Parts: sequence; structure tokens; C-alpha cells
Amino acid sequence: MKKEDCIFCKIINKEIPSTIVYEDDEVIAFEDINPIAPVHVLIIPKEHIEMVTELNEENSKFLPKIYLVANKIAEIKGIKEKGFRIIVNCGEDGGQEVHHIHFHLIGGKKLPVNVL
Amino acid sequence: MKKEDCIFCKIINKEIPSTIVYEDDEVIAFEDINPIAPVHVLIIPKEHIEMVTELNEENSKFLPKIYLVANKIAEIKGIKEKGFRIIVNCGEDGGQEVHHIHFHLIGGKKLPVNVL
Repeated sequence: MKKEDCIFCKIINKEIPSTIVYEDDEVIAFEDINPIAPVHVLIIPKEHIEMVTELNEENSKFLPKIYLVANKIAEIKGIKEKGFRIIVNCGEDGGQEVHHIHFHLIGGKKLPVNVL
Repeated sequence: MKKEDCIFCKIINKEIPSTIVYEDDEVIAFEDINPIAPVHVLIIPKEHIEMVTELNEENSKFLPKIYLVANKIAEIKGIKEKGFRIIVNCGEDGGQEVHHIHFHLIGGKKLPVNVL
């Protein structure tokens, strides 16, 4: 997918609306429009990287930030103590729906274990 | 949990057996003993960090490596093209079962989307 056609790049550029819960120079986080749990936020790098398999030594330096931001958001949402799940889907078998790498932060209820 | 009682630290130290699929100075990956898909590998840092909420600027530098190793394993397992999912459970609501941070690499079949 070209960057120009990417829905998440449009969210980054404020060309389409979203409920932003965190933003800095490198990363942005916003509410998933189809939440599957009481807390469901997407955390993405501003750089247009399509998927996990495109990550390399140079473009993967943002990854610690994603997890530090996940902790910040978990605190804001009041779920840091109880816990949460972070999910990254890659490619067709992974169920990736938007080809701009994104990290689902999911919580606010007891999530089932070891099911698909 | 103390490091001495950690089952994953024992795997790192080869005190209990596992089927290791990747290892370097920083990271180790091994087959999940209760796989929920044809491919189900756990990738962990060798440093004993209990969970996502313990990550900070200093101890999170291993994270890019986890994803680069996930790509290597996906290639070895023949699922890099088709795709996969990476899941991190944190705390009780997240369904975390071992308190040594670990990244589930899951694939080898079409995974359901947006279900818990």
C-alpha cells in the first residue's frame, strides 16, 4: 500500500478524525473504532512501516517507545495494575487489516488465555 | 517472583529442557509446550523482567531484537510470507502465566480477527 492511501497516515496527518490518547514526534495512539474490549487503543509509529516483516535494524528503533507508551496509556486508562494484552497482527494469516504496523493495547476485563 | 524460581530463567540456564529455535546473548526463543497453532514459539529476553509494566527506558532496549528474531523464526518456519501474530500478555487481566516477559509468535494457519 502506498503511504498516500494509508488510513493510519491520514490519522497521523489529521486528515481524518480519531480520538487521540497519546502523541509525540515518533508515535501516536488512538481509540480503535471497533473495540473488542473496554480498553482498545492502537499505538503506531508515525513512520509508515507496513508490517512486522518489514522491520530491520534501522527502522525498528521506535519499538521500546511503543511499550513505554502502552504503559502510559494503561496508567491513564486505570488498567496498569490489573493488566492488559498487546497484539500485533502481521500479514494475511495474522489478520492484519491496515498495512501500517500497529499495536493493539487491549484490556479493561479479564482476557481469555490461550485461545485464538 | 524471584529470578531463582522463574521457569523461563531455568530454560535460559538449561536447567530444564526446551526445544530452542533461536538463541543469542540477549534473547532466546523456544517452542511453547502447549501450542495453540501449528507455529507457537515464545521469544524472551535473557534478562529477568517480569512484565510489560516493568519496562523503562533502560531495560527496554532489547525490544527491536525480539521483532527481528520473530522475523528470523517466521522465515525458518516458512510463515514469513503468509503472516503471523505476536502477543504479549501482561498481568492478571492479560492472562500472563509466567512472570518473565515473553512474546508469543503464533502462526501456521489463518488466525481469527478481532476476537478474544
